[in-house]
Amino acid sequence: MEPPDPFESADDDTHGQMMRATYDALRKHGYADLTIQRIGDEFPKSKSLVYQHYDGKDELLVDFLDLMLDHFESGFQGVDDPDPRERLRRVLDHTLAPDVPDEQRAFTRAMTALRGQATHDAAFRDHFTETEAVFRSHFAAIVRDGVEAGTFRHVDPDAVAEYVATTLHGAMFRRATTNEAMDVTAVRRELDAYLDARLGLGDGG
Amino acid sequence: MEPPDPFESADDDTHGQMMRATYDALRKHGYADLTIQRIGDEFPKSKSLVYQHYDGKDELLVDFLDLMLDHFESGFQGVDDPDPRERLRRVLDHTLAPDVPDEQRAFTRAMTALRGQATHDAAFRDHFTETEAVFRSHFAAIVRDGVEAGTFRHVDPDAVAEYVATTLHGAMFRRATTNEAMDVTAVRRELDAYLDARLGLGDGG
Repeated sequence: MEPPDPFESADDDTHGQMMRATYDALRKHGYADLTIQRIGDEFPKSKSLVYQHYDGKDELLVDFLDLMLDHFESGFQGVDDPDPRERLRRVLDHTLAPDVPDEQRAFTRAMTALRGQATHDAAFRDHFTETEAVFRSHFAAIVRDGVEAGTFRHVDPDAVAEYVATTLHGAMFRRATTNEAMDVTAVRRELDAYLDARLGLGDGG
Repeated sequence: MEPPDPFESADDDTHGQMMRATYDALRKHGYADLTIQRIGDEFPKSKSLVYQHYDGKDELLVDFLDLMLDHFESGFQGVDDPDPRERLRRVLDHTLAPDVPDEQRAFTRAMTALRGQATHDAAFRDHFTETEAVFRSHFAAIVRDGVEAGTFRHVDPDAVAEYVATTLHGAMFRRATTNEAMDVTAVRRELDAYLDARLGLGDGG
């Protein structure tokens, strides 16, 4: 869902480099200690370009979040296996991987830092509300496909998507804000038990 | 789990008043825009007392988080119904209430803002790691009691607690960082479906 480098294709232009600089600074400093100056430190061209483009760090970060949302959507669309069980499995394998690569862990921490600020910043909150709607609708589409194909039981795809999205967000949140104390294997096993019971995956389909 | 006013009994002493001032300032400003000055603005006595006690906002906030943890523990211990199903129900009713009182919403937002900072602050991360262990062990104790009483099936109490804690944290996180777009009733219904299937609550017990 979040490929390791969303800036790869954009690295040759100034905007792409600014976005990568924002990401690098956010990973290092979190939200509260982030400054335009620190973003400029990561930017390979003249810092003054960053000041010319943006009035402050929040304006830059909203732009950055838009890019993340596009990237997130294209990641979901890339999961195009015809079997809805397989698409479901891939989303869970990615989000609940027992061993998270350093780059993915850093990304989740950076996004969680921004979400912490969304508690008191309406522009960030609007953004995450939209991101969640995208996640939920993609996930519901997988469940709906499975129901229509007769692979899954006749559940409410939106309710299942809402619930699974909640659990997956909880896992990301807990991992990013504690010393990795969560037993992710247990969480995955219990989530699979829920899906088996609810979607009828254990019925030999 | 988080009674509305954890400062009530402490309001007559300076430390209690400082903690309440911290909470009020945190609710208003979030973490990133919080300053000792702003905490002092909420404090009824001389601001200089706050500066005398603490070197900076983070030292004050770690103290504040310790108080929250004590408060959280005593809240959990207050759920002492002999029937484990009833204790389970009360925890879920509280955390997944469809209508959250303003005070509880403000509290959750304030704590989520601090968790956002925990992504890049080891002292906060240590604290939330401890809070989560407390939550998980209390929740596992409810499940264990139910298994021993024969009310619940023979599940792994720690795995069920880990999973439910993840879902409940996800619900708090999503509500605090989006425009309340989450369908909390659907989340509760699906969580109940999981518990019914896993603990055998639908077996007429």
